[in-house]
Amino acid sequence: MSESAKTLTSSAEFDSTAYIDAIGEAARTSAAAMARASTSEKNAALIGIARKIENSREAILSANAEDVANAAGLDKAFVDRLLLDEKRISAMAEGLRIIAELADPIGETTELCYRPTGIQIGKMRVPLGVVGVIYESRPNVTADAAALCLKAGNSAILRGGSEALLSNAAIAKCIRAGLDEAGLPQAAVQVLDTIDRSAVGALLRAHEWVDVIVPRGGKSLIRRVMDEAKMPVIKHLDGVCHVFIEEHADLKKAFDVAVNSKTQRYGTCNTMETLLVADPISAAVLPSLIHAYCEAGVELRGCPATCAIDSRVNPAAEEDWFEEYLAPILAIRIVDDLDDAIDHIRRYGSQHTDSIVTEDLGAGRRFLSEVDSSSVMLNASTRFADGFEYGLGAEIGISTDKFHARGPVGLTGLTSQKWIVIGDGHVRT
Amino acid sequence: MSESAKTLTSSAEFDSTAYIDAIGEAARTSAAAMARASTSEKNAALIGIARKIENSREAILSANAEDVANAAGLDKAFVDRLLLDEKRISAMAEGLRIIAELADPIGETTELCYRPTGIQIGKMRVPLGVVGVIYESRPNVTADAAALCLKAGNSAILRGGSEALLSNAAIAKCIRAGLDEAGLPQAAVQVLDTIDRSAVGALLRAHEWVDVIVPRGGKSLIRRVMDEAKMPVIKHLDGVCHVFIEEHADLKKAFDVAVNSKTQRYGTCNTMETLLVADPISAAVLPSLIHAYCEAGVELRGCPATCAIDSRVNPAAEEDWFEEYLAPILAIRIVDDLDDAIDHIRRYGSQHTDSIVTEDLGAGRRFLSEVDSSSVMLNASTRFADGFEYGLGAEIGISTDKFHARGPVGLTGLTSQKWIVIGDGHVRT
Repeated sequence: MSESAKTLTSSAEFDSTAYIDAIGEAARTSAAAMARASTSEKNAALIGIARKIENSREAILSANAEDVANAAGLDKAFVDRLLLDEKRISAMAEGLRIIAELADPIGETTELCYRPTGIQIGKMRVPLGVVGVIYESRPNVTADAAALCLKAGNSAILRGGSEALLSNAAIAKCIRAGLDEAGLPQAAVQVLDTIDRSAVGALLRAHEWVDVIVPRGGKSLIRRVMDEAKMPVIKHLDGVCHVFIEEHADLKKAFDVAVNSKTQRYGTCNTMETLLVADPISAAVLPSLIHAYCEAGVELRGCPATCAIDSRVNPAAEEDWFEEYLAPILAIRIVDDLDDAIDHIRRYGSQHTDSIVTEDLGAGRRFLSEVDSSSVMLNASTRFADGFEYGLGAEIGISTDKFHARGPVGLTGLTSQKWIVIGDGHVRT
Repeated sequence: MSESAKTLTSSAEFDSTAYIDAIGEAARTSAAAMARASTSEKNAALIGIARKIENSREAILSANAEDVANAAGLDKAFVDRLLLDEKRISAMAEGLRIIAELADPIGETTELCYRPTGIQIGKMRVPLGVVGVIYESRPNVTADAAALCLKAGNSAILRGGSEALLSNAAIAKCIRAGLDEAGLPQAAVQVLDTIDRSAVGALLRAHEWVDVIVPRGGKSLIRRVMDEAKMPVIKHLDGVCHVFIEEHADLKKAFDVAVNSKTQRYGTCNTMETLLVADPISAAVLPSLIHAYCEAGVELRGCPATCAIDSRVNPAAEEDWFEEYLAPILAIRIVDDLDDAIDHIRRYGSQHTDSIVTEDLGAGRRFLSEVDSSSVMLNASTRFADGFEYGLGAEIGISTDKFHARGPVGLTGLTSQKWIVIGDGHVRT
């Protein structure tokens, strides 16, 4: 990308298409080099970037301080996400080293077998090409997303929130230096350096340069990307997660899983938003659970039968069953049985993460098969639905789609598989 | 779908959106039932449909005769694809039985392993949901596509060429009867019964009902689907396949693979369209190859160095390297070496199927890794790139995309994987 195509400011004459074309072309060219890069080159780059970030603490913190000063007056939670400190910078570097230690997915050949014709066929894992990531104010995503794309042999185009522009530019400088030292093209990771919003539109139209877009952020961002993107999107919209306490649940496990799924953290997409309880076990399990939630300060909204158990439960409206509270609020519904629970999840759920608590093998087997969510669980907290917990090392996002990648998306989700055929002069007859 | 929403004719007042909405809603409802269907129910339906088709030979042939009569005056090759006879009907039934015998992909659980927290995580294969297939005049695709969608636990909406309307309706009747007898919803396979072209547009917009679209046909159909579809598309555009005879190739294997890749069949997408030969081996391999191609009636278009070898080779123009001839025409180019060949394929290829002939392990290893095509081969004919040859049993199409499915797409390409988590009351700390 030529310096002239770049701009740190927005202007009326800004040509977003030309800007993205220059970036896209450089990304496409570097993607070919990245696909050929050896595991040791990629790891050297990751470790080099980690070192650069640690050695550039002052520059990054000073850029971040400027971003934070410019964000004065914005929402407190927003500013907290934007803020970097020594600890967060160390965590960024550590995240890069963790990804360096992950097995290289590229070139992995599986299912190689002989066919009756004598040819061997198998599948080899390859990069997707150019990955675009659009995110909001957290500057650490710049390092995380770059590292995942790079390790999976892709070229990345990153677009962070405009409020984090200077922080991201400081991190981008470390990424370029690390790539360069490892002998990899600096354009393998490009961070958009304009606050002009039209650049996002141009990026979403650039299907000749960008193979997949990953939006990370609030629903309005995701919806915009879904509406405008001319390439495939890896995204998740809602996390309306359920725990269903089945009739044959162990009371202790039910209590532990239901409490943990709600209260371990409120603002995460894998937090339970609705608790379903089978009618026959509700009298045994709900009083102690309601008490625990109230002690934890969770507001409860229940079906009439739940409200009848404890006066601290307020009546739930129809909208509550659809709601992703992301807050200390929980909807509770007593259902007849497993079928009723599966129907409720099908109707109101968001296909993110749903868990059953039961000791009945048949009920567990049916729930695991029939509930069509990206993660389906048996006797485990919904809070486990996470790339780190699943052993992916890191995740670029969580997908609630079924096409290509589903659930937490790690390195593998940023790759594809090609067929390889090995013969010895074999021909088709 | 209500009968009133159906029409066998086109009319000015035809409401394509309402038509597709009725079909889509029925497809969505039946998809849930199909996802739960047991392997034996699905196989019973497939075998039942095969039997119905055999028992309805007369009705199918008579409907087909009417379609063929209506198509009088159309292109001969077109009418041949439209035509059904006893043999083709038997082949359709046999295809259904082959798919019944394939392993059921749904519910397959893989990679189940323990995490340090004590939970087990794994992946379970699940249907995609509703699959739309848009194809041209071959009526046998109706049975093939229905069978693959059905076995993979999906609901299907099929739109065949309008010239095959009556043939497809006769086959659809057998499919509905087979589904019904097996206790599965008849709406699990719906064949559009209107020739109104606006129905295709409505289908391509119906992302709330259709999870993936598979177009099968000529480039204009594929381009229309790519432009208009509001859901993911599994498609392939071009098959500009290459064979590269590397410097260290065995002459006999090179001859066999190069001849077979071109002459075994001319009109298929996995037929070689350009032959690349390393300069040092060109004098040893090209004269006999050129002779063989000329004997087979293949028109040759070569680079200057190739033309200099044999006067029967005409000069190739730049466009020839991009061309998918689908005909007895072959472009031949002498390249310097492996790098030159890989560059040529990257520049002119269509990422479909490319093969290297060599005895050099290093060259083979590099070609397999670095050529970014859906099938990459070593010492084997490009004609092997096919779902049956790869052991998929059947294919719904070949994908030259990298997202989700690549290369021949069989049952697995019509599925997704969800995560399953099994604990014993495990919570996240």
